[in-house]
Amino acid sequence: MTTERPRTKDMALRERARAVIPNGMYGHQNASILPPNFPQFFSRADGAHLWDADGNRYIDYMCAYGPILLGYRHPGVDRAAAEVQDAGDCMNGPTEKMVELAELLVDITPWADWAWFAKNGTDATVYAASLARTATGRNAILRAGGAYHGASPTWMAGGPEDSAEGMIEYTFNDLASVRAALDAAEGAAAAVIVSAFRHDVGYDQELPTVEFAQGVRDLCDTNGILLILDDVRGGFRIDMAGSWAPLGIDPDLSIYCKAIGNGHPISALLGRDHLSEAVAATFATGSYWFTGAPMAAAHATITAMQETDGIARLDRIGTALREGWQQAADAHGVGIRQTGPVSIPLMLFDGDDFSTRDVPRAYRFSAELADRGVYLHPVHNGFLSTAISDEDIAHTIEASNEAFGVIAAEFSG
Amino acid sequence: MTTERPRTKDMALRERARAVIPNGMYGHQNASILPPNFPQFFSRADGAHLWDADGNRYIDYMCAYGPILLGYRHPGVDRAAAEVQDAGDCMNGPTEKMVELAELLVDITPWADWAWFAKNGTDATVYAASLARTATGRNAILRAGGAYHGASPTWMAGGPEDSAEGMIEYTFNDLASVRAALDAAEGAAAAVIVSAFRHDVGYDQELPTVEFAQGVRDLCDTNGILLILDDVRGGFRIDMAGSWAPLGIDPDLSIYCKAIGNGHPISALLGRDHLSEAVAATFATGSYWFTGAPMAAAHATITAMQETDGIARLDRIGTALREGWQQAADAHGVGIRQTGPVSIPLMLFDGDDFSTRDVPRAYRFSAELADRGVYLHPVHNGFLSTAISDEDIAHTIEASNEAFGVIAAEFSG
Repeated sequence: MTTERPRTKDMALRERARAVIPNGMYGHQNASILPPNFPQFFSRADGAHLWDADGNRYIDYMCAYGPILLGYRHPGVDRAAAEVQDAGDCMNGPTEKMVELAELLVDITPWADWAWFAKNGTDATVYAASLARTATGRNAILRAGGAYHGASPTWMAGGPEDSAEGMIEYTFNDLASVRAALDAAEGAAAAVIVSAFRHDVGYDQELPTVEFAQGVRDLCDTNGILLILDDVRGGFRIDMAGSWAPLGIDPDLSIYCKAIGNGHPISALLGRDHLSEAVAATFATGSYWFTGAPMAAAHATITAMQETDGIARLDRIGTALREGWQQAADAHGVGIRQTGPVSIPLMLFDGDDFSTRDVPRAYRFSAELADRGVYLHPVHNGFLSTAISDEDIAHTIEASNEAFGVIAAEFSG
Repeated sequence: MTTERPRTKDMALRERARAVIPNGMYGHQNASILPPNFPQFFSRADGAHLWDADGNRYIDYMCAYGPILLGYRHPGVDRAAAEVQDAGDCMNGPTEKMVELAELLVDITPWADWAWFAKNGTDATVYAASLARTATGRNAILRAGGAYHGASPTWMAGGPEDSAEGMIEYTFNDLASVRAALDAAEGAAAAVIVSAFRHDVGYDQELPTVEFAQGVRDLCDTNGILLILDDVRGGFRIDMAGSWAPLGIDPDLSIYCKAIGNGHPISALLGRDHLSEAVAATFATGSYWFTGAPMAAAHATITAMQETDGIARLDRIGTALREGWQQAADAHGVGIRQTGPVSIPLMLFDGDDFSTRDVPRAYRFSAELADRGVYLHPVHNGFLSTAISDEDIAHTIEASNEAFGVIAAEFSG
């Protein structure tokens, strides 16, 4: 089922890139950490498919690392954005699209009183932390060890400065660890930030237990600190009212990015009325934060998800993929683990160990899929779009069946 | 010359906004700090003109607070962006547009070896500071007191935490103060960050002296620290090779945002080869950092500026505006000060004092202009686009002449 797939244009672009971009590429889309047959550069996309610079087609399970929710180049979303572009997008103030989007978000999110928009998820997580500090007059933020809440020196250790200052770690789904972190904060805790589910790259995903979510909410209430839900990864793929809505737990602030605009650049912070004063006291802005096209795109994305019951469709596609993978793996006697929401799939292999970066099965499996026109990241969770068809799933399972055969043969020891 | 200008739609949108957006608006485009006849919401834009939600037209001297360089909805730029949107924009990796844009920036910037892209100016200033810390193993960043280098807790004091930690202040154009700041750093300085020119809101702008720029460069070289040029405000309105190119001073890192993409969302960091290792060691990314459309827009913007000698055009328009304002002010005996690059104009009034927020002349003048269909911020520098015509300038000077008459009559004491 593999065919010869040209690489010349991608290789030429990589060589040109090495001359003018630091190390040829940076950030989460850096292909240097992927199997060598993965492309770095892409040329076009449509629905559930994308094409690399050499014109090789892939059924895509990455969705641009999350943003693509309704499929690439969704006509309704792109038309809504283009209409604003054709009238006026980046001006001296926002368009009415900002009000319409804020109204829609507040309407679909029962606990939220307001919405605030920026460009990166990091903009919103960093701002949420600043708001919590302003609102409480306290400094410490509790976060789960290993959790990713955006790329900022405020969140990441690594530099020579103590850039994680004011951060105290707990363990996801371990309420006792949150209590211990609160004790360690000695009354200085401003907020608990928590991902919608545990999605540390390379490790099994973990859905929150109701006991954990309710317990964290209660601890926040008891101690007068804020609960910040980082829904950048999960948002609009689990529940349109927010990923903790099915648990019945309301945060004080929640953050969306990625899927909110189906690829158009926008992030959002939702909050409660009592935090409006903190917003007024905490200046933040960006050159393009108030452009209308991404706001129109986000409005159209959310509306399309509602009108087509996109969540149900993602569940159906995700369940078919999960069951297909399990059957194929079982047939070849390959041990796998599938974790997290079915719409944000992660399959890891027994015998691989990401803690030592020893994941040969995952790398080989994803490389075999890439050769068969299926784009699946080896160790980062995937993302589903509603554009994935039954035929796409059937092709993916067929390709995966072959790839599991390769894994069974090569790693039989 | 004033006409009745409807306000009903803007007022209705503001009321709706107050219900779903914190305090109705936030950030640099918050109209609540402008004279009350300024609109908050806009509906369309074209060339040098924009229209508010009620359809009132303005000749625009704000250019979306900088991004609009070639006029709103520039056909060549918007077509370049739309072509990428119509093929594939936000995908699993960048398009070839990323390489083409990096090549162009490195080509027009003699000292730069690479380009790196993000979404906000803040993304790039914060990352530049992280790079400097990683590259030098030292923590302190020297910045001018009062200077704006982006909205981040890293840059801004104000929260309960000591968010400006690691920052040591100097005074723009005062080399002795830079030396004193270096002494205060006690060997821990990683970088000096400097704006292309001094543009603190509400105060006279100040161009750098050659002695200051050369002196800072020498101090950085002598002490093995990095010189970061924050060219977010000045970039592509002073010199296409960077705003310190006319001074003959090369930084180690420089930052563009705003005008680089004529309103399409992208920021850029330019650097030297020896910093590539620091980039590899300093992870940062964003959901939409690698989308192709804004990169195509930036390439088209820079190319159009080169092909039409846009800098010369901005100089000509800016000089005509400056001379027209001076003549009109003189004719009415109104004392004004015009400072900074002519393409980034700022006119302040003798008798006003921003340090006590007592600027009635500036507010009245800009309000009078708004009533006459001219959008000029009272205390923030303006921005010119190449789309401003001689007729626009003539209308502006005519309106300004009437407005100076009002100022002369009302503030005659």
